[in-house]
Amino acid sequence: MEAMTEQALSKKNVLEFIREYFNTVVPFNILVGLHVTKMTPEVVEVHTAMRKELIGNTVQKILHGGVVSTLLDVASGLVAMAQSIEKLDDLTPENVEIHLKNVGTIDLRIDYLLPGRGEEFTAYAYVIRHGKKVVVSRMELENEKGDQLAVGTGTYIVG
Amino acid sequence: MEAMTEQALSKKNVLEFIREYFNTVVPFNILVGLHVTKMTPEVVEVHTAMRKELIGNTVQKILHGGVVSTLLDVASGLVAMAQSIEKLDDLTPENVEIHLKNVGTIDLRIDYLLPGRGEEFTAYAYVIRHGKKVVVSRMELENEKGDQLAVGTGTYIVG
Amino acid sequence: MEAMTEQALSKKNVLEFIREYFNTVVPFNILVGLHVTKMTPEVVEVHTAMRKELIGNTVQKILHGGVVSTLLDVASGLVAMAQSIEKLDDLTPENVEIHLKNVGTIDLRIDYLLPGRGEEFTAYAYVIRHGKKVVVSRMELENEKGDQLAVGTGTYIVG
Amino acid sequence: MEAMTEQALSKKNVLEFIREYFNTVVPFNILVGLHVTKMTPEVVEVHTAMRKELIGNTVQKILHGGVVSTLLDVASGLVAMAQSIEKLDDLTPENVEIHLKNVGTIDLRIDYLLPGRGEEFTAYAYVIRHGKKVVVSRMELENEKGDQLAVGTGTYIVG
Repeated sequence: MEAMTEQALSKKNVLEFIREYFNTVVPFNILVGLHVTKMTPEVVEVHTAMRKELIGNTVQKILHGGVVSTLLDVASGLVAMAQSIEKLDDLTPENVEIHLKNVGTIDLRIDYLLPGRGEEFTAYAYVIRHGKKVVVSRMELENEKGDQLAVGTGTYIVG
Repeated sequence: MEAMTEQALSKKNVLEFIREYFNTVVPFNILVGLHVTKMTPEVVEVHTAMRKELIGNTVQKILHGGVVSTLLDVASGLVAMAQSIEKLDDLTPENVEIHLKNVGTIDLRIDYLLPGRGEEFTAYAYVIRHGKKVVVSRMELENEKGDQLAVGTGTYIVG
Repeated sequence: MEAMTEQALSKKNVLEFIREYFNTVVPFNILVGLHVTKMTPEVVEVHTAMRKELIGNTVQKILHGGVVSTLLDVASGLVAMAQSIEKLDDLTPENVEIHLKNVGTIDLRIDYLLPGRGEEFTAYAYVIRHGKKVVVSRMELENEKGDQLAVGTGTYIVG
Repeated sequence: MEAMTEQALSKKNVLEFIREYFNTVVPFNILVGLHVTKMTPEVVEVHTAMRKELIGNTVQKILHGGVVSTLLDVASGLVAMAQSIEKLDDLTPENVEIHLKNVGTIDLRIDYLLPGRGEEFTAYAYVIRHGKKVVVSRMELENEKGDQLAVGTGTYIVG
């Protein structure tokens, strides 16, 4: 592994800070019980375990569609943020804060492929359009068996 | 008002039953604190009041994107169900159950127009494609001032 | 009618110039035979008459899905351009050119509601998100009887 | 290679017949100059060469957005048809015809990733949801250098 520059180290710290913030401060993330388990400019992973409160269909015991969209939305928003941080030249706290405040979801499309059955759910997001103003990401949701339950696309304003 | 037929009365009862079920039994709806306040084949309304747990951005105190998508998803799924019930000729409990089990979300698109600020949020859904196999609905989310915060489109398998 | 300022007159001229350019210079618009019949910052209308070359289904004589998406794409792109021009403070040719070059489609969603039957087709586009960097528009396609054949949503980078 | 059953042979013939029909009979496909170069239940490929008539931006000489959506729409519609044929038990001409008539586009999302520059354009479509009533496909558009210009998702009614 090559030595990281101070800038690269700092960027890694910023991403780690955001990850912690999303896991321990954002109220709805806590309510849902989701955990951002990985956050790099290449990929973001968001995980949740099945529990009774997340059920949308009590007969078939499947995940509520709103939980699916929440997991995909969080993962794709964070990968847009990570891209935005990655492109920053000047990593002062003020500059980071301004850039994060400017990140906003424009639109989201979710394709539900299979009923949300399983014990563990992981959303993955990666960037397919790297723009200065707009980032587009692609998302996938899998259960613990690797079944692809949903895919999606998100468009974000950045910068 | 013209007299309702027995069949029409029964259909109204079925919709009322589903509405109650969504409000009092579906766990994630209870966790989010949403209420289906109207359910007809023409329009479904879903309401929630702002509370701390629904926040996605703690600095600006705005609704989490996942709450927005949950409200729109529930409203549009229910209007697809109401359409499915409306077209039923035979309203036996078995037939109703089969039809409801067959309703599934295919895809969802959400356009986020304004940050989710407000005290009261209401999602409206109405049908724009009335098919035997597929129903497409259009959704809107407003706050108590009538600001349109988000719009969306949902595609559902029915029948 | 109130007197127009010089700036407003110039903006109107710029829109008229773009409209003419789309109708008489853009090769694929000529191939399809579409005409931009109205272009304001509020609404854009694009029209085409049915002819044999636009058919996608020879048995049922209905419009090709690609013609539907072309009409909606042109209408929504132009309303995004009209918005971009509307917000310009400095209407020099160079500034106009830069702004127009920066307009680009990010994504498009089309919902096909009815088979494309008819003699005359008109696409309408209006803006639902007015941003400095991103504009979102809503589109509709109607035939000469007023049947709504398709609706859509487009996201554009501007500015 | 294992010997094909009569049924499998016939299915291959049906797909080949549809492919020829799309290439030589459908008027708008001929106007655009597109060619379906591969059609299997797994993947469909649609190709076009750049020519003056397909340009949308005369300064930058890039493909019109409507050509992009047409190529993706044709590819995804055909892969939905191929899936529909694949599931048929009874391959009589009447049955095939009924199934093909029932295939219809529900919705389409296109993400434009790069300006449409190039000499040769190929759209690929494959199925991500294999349903009896609804098929969802994923599409990609590449130029001759392998640059990914656009991706998309299409939802189709079948069966």
